[in-house]
Amino acid sequence: MPTSRLEAFSDGVFAIAITLLIFGIQAPAHTDHLLAALLALWPSYLGYVLSFLLIGLLWANHHVMFEHIERTDRGLMFLNTILLLVVAFLPFATTVLASTFRTGAGENTAVVLYGIVMVLAVLLFNAIWRHARRAGLMDGHVTEAGFRRMNRRILFGPLMYGVGAVAGYFIPWLGVVLYLGLILFYWLPIPQRNTAGEVVGTR
Amino acid sequence: MPTSRLEAFSDGVFAIAITLLIFGIQAPAHTDHLLAALLALWPSYLGYVLSFLLIGLLWANHHVMFEHIERTDRGLMFLNTILLLVVAFLPFATTVLASTFRTGAGENTAVVLYGIVMVLAVLLFNAIWRHARRAGLMDGHVTEAGFRRMNRRILFGPLMYGVGAVAGYFIPWLGVVLYLGLILFYWLPIPQRNTAGEVVGTR
Amino acid sequence: MPTSRLEAFSDGVFAIAITLLIFGIQAPAHTDHLLAALLALWPSYLGYVLSFLLIGLLWANHHVMFEHIERTDRGLMFLNTILLLVVAFLPFATTVLASTFRTGAGENTAVVLYGIVMVLAVLLFNAIWRHARRAGLMDGHVTEAGFRRMNRRILFGPLMYGVGAVAGYFIPWLGVVLYLGLILFYWLPIPQRNTAGEVVGTR
Amino acid sequence: MPTSRLEAFSDGVFAIAITLLIFGIQAPAHTDHLLAALLALWPSYLGYVLSFLLIGLLWANHHVMFEHIERTDRGLMFLNTILLLVVAFLPFATTVLASTFRTGAGENTAVVLYGIVMVLAVLLFNAIWRHARRAGLMDGHVTEAGFRRMNRRILFGPLMYGVGAVAGYFIPWLGVVLYLGLILFYWLPIPQRNTAGEVVGTR
Repeated sequence: MPTSRLEAFSDGVFAIAITLLIFGIQAPAHTDHLLAALLALWPSYLGYVLSFLLIGLLWANHHVMFEHIERTDRGLMFLNTILLLVVAFLPFATTVLASTFRTGAGENTAVVLYGIVMVLAVLLFNAIWRHARRAGLMDGHVTEAGFRRMNRRILFGPLMYGVGAVAGYFIPWLGVVLYLGLILFYWLPIPQRNTAGEVVGTR
Repeated sequence: MPTSRLEAFSDGVFAIAITLLIFGIQAPAHTDHLLAALLALWPSYLGYVLSFLLIGLLWANHHVMFEHIERTDRGLMFLNTILLLVVAFLPFATTVLASTFRTGAGENTAVVLYGIVMVLAVLLFNAIWRHARRAGLMDGHVTEAGFRRMNRRILFGPLMYGVGAVAGYFIPWLGVVLYLGLILFYWLPIPQRNTAGEVVGTR
Repeated sequence: MPTSRLEAFSDGVFAIAITLLIFGIQAPAHTDHLLAALLALWPSYLGYVLSFLLIGLLWANHHVMFEHIERTDRGLMFLNTILLLVVAFLPFATTVLASTFRTGAGENTAVVLYGIVMVLAVLLFNAIWRHARRAGLMDGHVTEAGFRRMNRRILFGPLMYGVGAVAGYFIPWLGVVLYLGLILFYWLPIPQRNTAGEVVGTR
Repeated sequence: MPTSRLEAFSDGVFAIAITLLIFGIQAPAHTDHLLAALLALWPSYLGYVLSFLLIGLLWANHHVMFEHIERTDRGLMFLNTILLLVVAFLPFATTVLASTFRTGAGENTAVVLYGIVMVLAVLLFNAIWRHARRAGLMDGHVTEAGFRRMNRRILFGPLMYGVGAVAGYFIPWLGVVLYLGLILFYWLPIPQRNTAGEVVGTR
């Protein structure tokens, strides 16, 4: 089976999840001191930007990964569904995160929850990649070296997000800064490693 | 008429319905005891996972079924619209189901409602399949044996979901366990029956 | 410019508008007498079914119409945007309609509002069709006879919905019955007229 | 990498953002004096129409621009994600704008906020266009003259929206009228300039 409808379905879920993030920002109920009311929503804007960049990154990775996967089977569809389940959970985790920074209570729990969702997402990318390799669903252009390089990244990505989660448990804002830094770092292209188009998975 | 836009439209509805499930989980209003508040939402997480796997499965079946359907007519578009109507109803049934397990009242009604929606979805897959056969919209590769094998499954699927609904009327949590078990069972590939790619419909 | 992305964008809006209809049905706040609470929501279910069939029908018509339109220009994109604006308004009109039948006040206003939205949608189909003809965006297979036959339908469609709206102003439930009857009538294929595949527009 | 999935993903976000605008209009809680209650929502309808035309226009521009961009790289995907972040923010800005005109307080702040979002969107179109040019992602048909003509427009667009925002700070309704006028102006085709299909960017 070709992957075209799986990609279309996944694109749909990514696009909807990313757009629904805006519902995490509630318009002020009173508009008397609108500027102040809008500024007080800063944790929501931060959460919106953070999760938008994250889901956009996950989509870009999905895009790149499926450039290398040519066929789909039932196992791949199942793993992809679990990945989408985790991605679609992000708007909830974002709303919780922003609400704790507004109320000033529970930030550490919310930062850890957010980190867990990120780690799960990257682990599922890993599982999809390994399954596609094992089940022979990839095209012939992925070399052994490219596969192993990707494996190193796969250990590196969740590890870093995990470090962010642990740091965030003790100093919540540090966790958020680390998440944002990691997402931006993963967005930036690293030219010298990108040569063969083999960069997939956690990137 | 080719089926490409019908598939694109259906993919859209499946993708949106599956992503909207997250709105069935309301972020805690108070974040003072956030971990406890998050844990108390377990019925919502369970409903989210259950319905995500179910809609993902229905999408996968739709995908496989339309690999065999080559053309569309007005009748097929109507039946497909009714199927989507039932699929798009699932987020509501999920919210109701989760809310009863949180409040501890009305679980049996909610489990039966959920089961009815599942049975309707499978019956509509059946109707689409039969209509496509009758109206000559399928490609030539579906054998008589493959068609009959699918028919047996079509009787089996709603029967099992119906058993889950009846069990759930008396013991609600048993109904949910049965639903989850059936969905996972239908997700798993059964290699010895999958040989000719003829597995469609209720699977 | 080809019409592929315009169709993809429109499919997206139709798919989202149709799936968002479920948010017009609010899960009962209390689950003590769940069955009674669920049954009391019947106007919402009716509105859901009515609008689902309507948006599905409008999508099917859009699908058929753009089988005949080959190229797009700025005017077509603008008219299509206005059509989508009207389609995306339907979830709101549906929620208002269902709420009046639940509260028992304002039904006539709500039925008329719903009828106006329907008439606007059909008129916009008309405008798109005429613009495509005038600007030479159609393929060569639409005959003069087919174009005129469609024109008769275009007068017939809004007229009938308008009759439903007027009837609904005096007897609200009659208006809803007429809408539902018309939508089902337009869904049913009329074999003797469908011969050349020229049925487009209001159908 | 080809741009097809980037276009599909962007189409999804545009389609969802535009359809979600309807949630900015809340159905009246009481239906006793429904017509009056519906008429009192006029600022919400105005915001709905304004933002629907704006997002539709931005989508149309995106469509035209990517007719000229043939390949994508990581930088283009990042800039496109930021553009979508701004587009998906519009339903929030619209809800805020409409609520201030209903309550009669904070209109100037809301008009300026809306204008800032518009200016950001156009600047991001500019950034995408320049990046595609610099990174050699465009097809060969865009001439130097076409590129420079587009550059003049790029300065003109944000400038005009900025003028609208400044005017709106002092006279809010004037700002809204200017926005609507500019959006309609940009929707209308200007035949004598459209000859080579080079009109992209701010249009």
